[in-house]
Amino acid sequence: MSEVASSRVEKDLLGTLPVPSDAYYGIQTLRALHNFRLSGVPLAHYPKLIVALAMVKQAAADANRELGYLPEAKHLAISQGCARLIRGEFHEQFVVDMIQGGAGTSTNMNANEVIANLGLEAMGHAKGEYQYLHPNNDVNMAQSTNDAYPTAIRLGLLLGHDTLLASLESLCQSLTGKGHAFAHVLKMGRTQLQDAVPMTLGQEFHAFATTLGEDLHHLRGFAPELLLEVNLGGTAIGTGINADPRYQAIAVQRLAQISGQPLRQAADLIEATSDMGSFVLFSGMLKRLAVKLSKICNDLRLLSSGPRTGFNEINLPPRQPGSSIMPGKVNPVIPEAVNQVAFEVIGNDLALTMAAEGGQLQLNVMEPLIAYKLFDSIRLLQRAMDMLREHCIEGITANEDRCRELMESSIGLITALNPYIGYDNSTRLAREALLGGRSVLELVREERLLDDAMLAEILRPENMIAPRLAPLAV
Amino acid sequence: MSEVASSRVEKDLLGTLPVPSDAYYGIQTLRALHNFRLSGVPLAHYPKLIVALAMVKQAAADANRELGYLPEAKHLAISQGCARLIRGEFHEQFVVDMIQGGAGTSTNMNANEVIANLGLEAMGHAKGEYQYLHPNNDVNMAQSTNDAYPTAIRLGLLLGHDTLLASLESLCQSLTGKGHAFAHVLKMGRTQLQDAVPMTLGQEFHAFATTLGEDLHHLRGFAPELLLEVNLGGTAIGTGINADPRYQAIAVQRLAQISGQPLRQAADLIEATSDMGSFVLFSGMLKRLAVKLSKICNDLRLLSSGPRTGFNEINLPPRQPGSSIMPGKVNPVIPEAVNQVAFEVIGNDLALTMAAEGGQLQLNVMEPLIAYKLFDSIRLLQRAMDMLREHCIEGITANEDRCRELMESSIGLITALNPYIGYDNSTRLAREALLGGRSVLELVREERLLDDAMLAEILRPENMIAPRLAPLAV
Amino acid sequence: MSEVASSRVEKDLLGTLPVPSDAYYGIQTLRALHNFRLSGVPLAHYPKLIVALAMVKQAAADANRELGYLPEAKHLAISQGCARLIRGEFHEQFVVDMIQGGAGTSTNMNANEVIANLGLEAMGHAKGEYQYLHPNNDVNMAQSTNDAYPTAIRLGLLLGHDTLLASLESLCQSLTGKGHAFAHVLKMGRTQLQDAVPMTLGQEFHAFATTLGEDLHHLRGFAPELLLEVNLGGTAIGTGINADPRYQAIAVQRLAQISGQPLRQAADLIEATSDMGSFVLFSGMLKRLAVKLSKICNDLRLLSSGPRTGFNEINLPPRQPGSSIMPGKVNPVIPEAVNQVAFEVIGNDLALTMAAEGGQLQLNVMEPLIAYKLFDSIRLLQRAMDMLREHCIEGITANEDRCRELMESSIGLITALNPYIGYDNSTRLAREALLGGRSVLELVREERLLDDAMLAEILRPENMIAPRLAPLAV
Amino acid sequence: MSEVASSRVEKDLLGTLPVPSDAYYGIQTLRALHNFRLSGVPLAHYPKLIVALAMVKQAAADANRELGYLPEAKHLAISQGCARLIRGEFHEQFVVDMIQGGAGTSTNMNANEVIANLGLEAMGHAKGEYQYLHPNNDVNMAQSTNDAYPTAIRLGLLLGHDTLLASLESLCQSLTGKGHAFAHVLKMGRTQLQDAVPMTLGQEFHAFATTLGEDLHHLRGFAPELLLEVNLGGTAIGTGINADPRYQAIAVQRLAQISGQPLRQAADLIEATSDMGSFVLFSGMLKRLAVKLSKICNDLRLLSSGPRTGFNEINLPPRQPGSSIMPGKVNPVIPEAVNQVAFEVIGNDLALTMAAEGGQLQLNVMEPLIAYKLFDSIRLLQRAMDMLREHCIEGITANEDRCRELMESSIGLITALNPYIGYDNSTRLAREALLGGRSVLELVREERLLDDAMLAEILRPENMIAPRLAPLAV
Repeated sequence: MSEVASSRVEKDLLGTLPVPSDAYYGIQTLRALHNFRLSGVPLAHYPKLIVALAMVKQAAADANRELGYLPEAKHLAISQGCARLIRGEFHEQFVVDMIQGGAGTSTNMNANEVIANLGLEAMGHAKGEYQYLHPNNDVNMAQSTNDAYPTAIRLGLLLGHDTLLASLESLCQSLTGKGHAFAHVLKMGRTQLQDAVPMTLGQEFHAFATTLGEDLHHLRGFAPELLLEVNLGGTAIGTGINADPRYQAIAVQRLAQISGQPLRQAADLIEATSDMGSFVLFSGMLKRLAVKLSKICNDLRLLSSGPRTGFNEINLPPRQPGSSIMPGKVNPVIPEAVNQVAFEVIGNDLALTMAAEGGQLQLNVMEPLIAYKLFDSIRLLQRAMDMLREHCIEGITANEDRCRELMESSIGLITALNPYIGYDNSTRLAREALLGGRSVLELVREERLLDDAMLAEILRPENMIAPRLAPLAV
Repeated sequence: MSEVASSRVEKDLLGTLPVPSDAYYGIQTLRALHNFRLSGVPLAHYPKLIVALAMVKQAAADANRELGYLPEAKHLAISQGCARLIRGEFHEQFVVDMIQGGAGTSTNMNANEVIANLGLEAMGHAKGEYQYLHPNNDVNMAQSTNDAYPTAIRLGLLLGHDTLLASLESLCQSLTGKGHAFAHVLKMGRTQLQDAVPMTLGQEFHAFATTLGEDLHHLRGFAPELLLEVNLGGTAIGTGINADPRYQAIAVQRLAQISGQPLRQAADLIEATSDMGSFVLFSGMLKRLAVKLSKICNDLRLLSSGPRTGFNEINLPPRQPGSSIMPGKVNPVIPEAVNQVAFEVIGNDLALTMAAEGGQLQLNVMEPLIAYKLFDSIRLLQRAMDMLREHCIEGITANEDRCRELMESSIGLITALNPYIGYDNSTRLAREALLGGRSVLELVREERLLDDAMLAEILRPENMIAPRLAPLAV
Repeated sequence: MSEVASSRVEKDLLGTLPVPSDAYYGIQTLRALHNFRLSGVPLAHYPKLIVALAMVKQAAADANRELGYLPEAKHLAISQGCARLIRGEFHEQFVVDMIQGGAGTSTNMNANEVIANLGLEAMGHAKGEYQYLHPNNDVNMAQSTNDAYPTAIRLGLLLGHDTLLASLESLCQSLTGKGHAFAHVLKMGRTQLQDAVPMTLGQEFHAFATTLGEDLHHLRGFAPELLLEVNLGGTAIGTGINADPRYQAIAVQRLAQISGQPLRQAADLIEATSDMGSFVLFSGMLKRLAVKLSKICNDLRLLSSGPRTGFNEINLPPRQPGSSIMPGKVNPVIPEAVNQVAFEVIGNDLALTMAAEGGQLQLNVMEPLIAYKLFDSIRLLQRAMDMLREHCIEGITANEDRCRELMESSIGLITALNPYIGYDNSTRLAREALLGGRSVLELVREERLLDDAMLAEILRPENMIAPRLAPLAV
Repeated sequence: MSEVASSRVEKDLLGTLPVPSDAYYGIQTLRALHNFRLSGVPLAHYPKLIVALAMVKQAAADANRELGYLPEAKHLAISQGCARLIRGEFHEQFVVDMIQGGAGTSTNMNANEVIANLGLEAMGHAKGEYQYLHPNNDVNMAQSTNDAYPTAIRLGLLLGHDTLLASLESLCQSLTGKGHAFAHVLKMGRTQLQDAVPMTLGQEFHAFATTLGEDLHHLRGFAPELLLEVNLGGTAIGTGINADPRYQAIAVQRLAQISGQPLRQAADLIEATSDMGSFVLFSGMLKRLAVKLSKICNDLRLLSSGPRTGFNEINLPPRQPGSSIMPGKVNPVIPEAVNQVAFEVIGNDLALTMAAEGGQLQLNVMEPLIAYKLFDSIRLLQRAMDMLREHCIEGITANEDRCRELMESSIGLITALNPYIGYDNSTRLAREALLGGRSVLELVREERLLDDAMLAEILRPENMIAPRLAPLAV
């Protein structure tokens, strides 16, 4: 890192450092930048986290103003800084690596310093003149990283939650649409990759929509429950040391107003300071979504396998040439990418789990990794679902003739005839059909086990894809 | 496996096999026994699963009786068999390995065969005379493994759930008790393993109770929600093929009555047949509990470290001599065992996750592993929590003098003085104290920065372990 | 646990307990039995571990005898006890749970106590008369759990290693056999589940053999390297405190002789006492094997999918009826079980990894879980490979006509024609064939792009499944 | 994505797209850019991968030239393009997301297109005039993604390997240096966080060096073995279809020359095309390193805990102010960051494992994720080790007095007296010391169990930290 031509000097407990003149962050951010050159992913990568940090700082400043600890001028300056961050400005000033030691202190100080310097400029001072507005004394007043940072993570996750839900809901709708479009396409169901019994392709896509719909339901109803309780006001370890007894209630209420999220005060602040349980379970819910998406994409790849040597029941829309050596090959690249995202999310869940387990005593010092992995999983899932919907699901078409042909040739059909010709006859015919390479229908007709009208009746689609409304002779 | 002297011959599609005369299971169970010699853990290891299977068979038989498909005599015989299993008899007849191919067919057939043979004996027939009561045609009537088996897993988990909750609740109460007992023990809190600010040992144990209490809350309120929806009636792939349209409602209602669990019919049976989402999320909740237990045990081991070279704030009750070579050594063996259980549960969650992801099309064939890992995690957690409570928590004592001594010597105390002597003075004194090996109190007194009365007031425990009710001069 | 009618009283540091008269284990084992009721898997489940423990005790006794610390009579008695354990007797006396706190002390004491009591009886004394032969002073002489236990784990793994290798080698041979048997079966290869280019079924099975052969190679050559270095002689923390300076060399040499394994002394005993790296990497190698087995089984299930609606290129031998509701259905139950074993092994690897990471300072107290998971993974893999070979691979047959038919109808064939008719022509024909439902051969013939002789030449199997020896006109 | 003012039009099988005029990549790269907006991490993030791709392209071009398939002018142009990439130029043109469907086709085409356009400009043509130099026909000649891409991954990993080894070796040396520096610092060892027996701080750091040294040994000797075998020449599925029989040998030999790595031809190219085993095991080795680094950092955090309420045996160099609310607090931020990197690497290993397991038939389509996770883990580990060494290990100092004081007050000392005063006396004294808060030395002196000279002799450091050279009376 070359020394910047133009810089200002800042100091902290460890000494002084030149800070680039145009930087809104300060010396503590700079130390973190020097210390942690790890993932290469800066805080700025996750805008919701920065917005949430700014909202926390604003709420704290409001409470401190209301309680008389923060003068009006300083409150105004802080508010101006926070507002700009909330509007999406100056996010590039959040340069600290997402992986960092110090339990988030560097993230918190990055926010404190940027807001202080924005405020200083608004007050007519130069960046770095902290005697007029101090990152710690003023911006961080009545806060510790240990309460401000986890609160911001929760809020940041909540702020991004609607986007995730929207992508998931759109995907469900798209799958439901396909469920309707394919409602008439009769095909064989498969269990254990073996021919089972008939169903419709519409039922298959409808089941995809149903299963993701359940996750939508849980993520909408339950996930926010996990995140709404915040420990703001607990300061260093949850005892609220050095905080005004009225502070917690005011600050949390203000934060709820500012953010529009119905945040609640944690009842046991000691517990809330170190507990990562909400993140573990939230990640578990994301992992479940990833597992389901992966299963669906595995199915899409199976159903579209071929075109000649596979199932070939559906066609995925071609997205790019599949091979430089095999002409005309088109591959299921979109589901393949979703599979990989799912594995990444599952890997993230493990890293997060270990980080949660690694907490000790009054704090979980691995919280930065926990935040990183959650924000990463959410974004990956959201992007993967949008990609899957736009670039794959919407364009899927059915090979109706192929579906019907496979069904009609299948030995599994014998199951539907089971109640009429008996299990023994069925088993015998199944074996004959398999060994002789013949269709079971043919054999049933040949043996005159059922007359053609009855056979036709039994094999009418509506009789095969749901419990029979009017069973024939039993 | 030596051939049994006394045996009966049974047959299936693949041929005949001699079955031991005294076995209530039949040929299909025997084939599974030959095929799957893997984990060495038989179904009988998990009684709740067997009871649940019997309840499912009873509910199906009741529905089939009500709909007129199952004659009264057969219904009575099946009911007698199911009742005995529900009472806990004949569980040793469930011999199939928990890890098995076939998506649970072997488990389902193990149940069908045992119930059929129990029923046959009740009817006055010999075991194996299936012409009078057939494992498939009668006991399994209107069922497929694909609906009966997942339904039994869900029910089995629900049946065991209260026991898990009871263990968890007892542990919470025990921790709360210690929270009260240690409410007066002042000590230093630690963040990042570094001296932070004062708290009470009671607050520390109360936080343990709080954090587990949240899991109790979720497991009690949310976990059953995940499991109550069953796919009984879906038969092979969820289309309900070959089932009477009235069957699903009657069977599920009966099962709810028999089990006392408010089970519900799945709305989308296609989806419900292959979906493992409930299990993934339930396991995620167990994993979260494991993470918390592990963190608590890590803390207990830290707090009891020493006696001379560690923290030594608490004493765990000695459970066994700690070392053959080091006289008088007593180790924290109970928390250590809990840690290992937690890792096992986290490993189980991964195996289950991969199994869930590995489902294809209309069925998840890895369901036996999913069931195995869930039942295993639940039992491990329950036993670990009982062990932790009985053999450790209940007997913990505090080293009050040590706690107070460490607190009084700690440099972290300076934080409480911060609002009174200023951040700059505080920082300077902290450094002096550290380098000179002196106490901050001593230095404050020496510099006459505060008079003794005020110092005593600031350092009164009730002023340090919660937001101050009446701040002094600011 | 009901008190036993007949018992003897033993005592330790914590007091006295009645021990069942017929038990060869003693009070410390009993305490562990009371403390750790967790997995339900006793030490006796893994005979190689018990044999290894006995060998370690024998080697230590030999060294102590040679150095003059252990009298001849005691040495003889210990030797008799060890010999019986090595012969497989009295393993049921190893009752402690595989999951235990105390870093293996309970396992070590279980061995010490059983050997002492066997020795006492051999000396003509009653069980429990430890004044004549003491579990700690004599059997455990110059040892700590912290060196004897890890040494026994390593040795136990080595003792079981050949069995694992034998199963793996047999499986490779079986797959190679199928590779030869199917060498003439031409089929389409598939990439991304899409038709690719021709190959033989023999090549496919040969690749299975090759990939497992690589694991055989690594496991044979590299895995033992990981395990041969033992820390026997390090006593409590690796400093060798209280041990004769000559002891380590003698004991390790004796252990190598007794076991027939070329064991080596660890150079840095401090490191060797706490390091779990060998186990982590060994488990990583087992995980890799599991991943490969799972992939192969996924392929077998795909290749045998159908019979009518799937690939249906091969037939797996039927092992059990597949469905109670679907007549004639036969499922790939063996590969399905292998998949689940693989997931279990991967889960084990995670539990073990967390246990390894959880070690602190001079010891890894999670070692019992590490040992448990390794022995479990090895046995599961061995059994799964034997099952896969015997019950599946050996009986696989090929559907040659189906393979050829799929190949001939496949559009991927166009790739082989590519150098002769050009990429543009190829792409155009591929698309025409796909849209028109026709074969590429037909189209090539129709357009007279190549004469029949040349076409036949290009499509000769030997020209398609390897780089061409004599390219035609380019 | 706004349409670029200046663009050229390119076309592929799916149609045409405008490509930015200044882009060296082409239409297929652009399609991938549109399709895969997932991780946000472009190929350019991993320069070694790009260099390796260029080397593969160069080797293939050389072989094609030598065999007469590629004209000299085209060979020269391709060579010029490859050379610039190998020199580190134009890496920003590698814009495709590391997570991508298509098994790496987009990565391979990104390379093909950039090299073609660089070559075209060198030939005096405009970008996009592929009639003169074609990405597929010329740059990708005789290659498939399925052989070129895995070969490049392996080579890329090998190219980065020395850097990883260098960082690891430096860290070992640094730890060894501390081992020497602290060789005289006597302290208590701890097992199970309980006082054990004496050792030196030097031994503790030396053990850190030893344990990482073992990984250095394995990574240096064994990891390259895993990666040196490449499948270049296998083309689409390993049959080498459409490749000259002489091509494989020439291309691999050339690649070895160009790269300076002793690459070998894979013997079974079918297997080598789909097998991910090397990556799984290599990742397992990285995971092991991560586990060890995490354990070491856990120890460093424990040893430096305090300063007043923890172990406080060592001081980590302060890197940044630790707290805004607690004056003078300095936290172990560097080890904390390493812990998090370790968890990330373990999570990466899981994602990679699932990707490896997800391969099907002749290809593993999840290979892009596998490559991504490996390159990511390597870089994270390397950076974390450099950070740990520079910012932490080098600056560690010992609190010698504290170490000695803790040791002298420790009850564990009794172990050293054990052979002289007997186990019974030792146990009794240990208990008395513990309950009475006294030192064992004091008690031994008081009871006159040993004379002062002998006691001093026994407790001489050199007698306690290694097997005694001259045992006193036994």
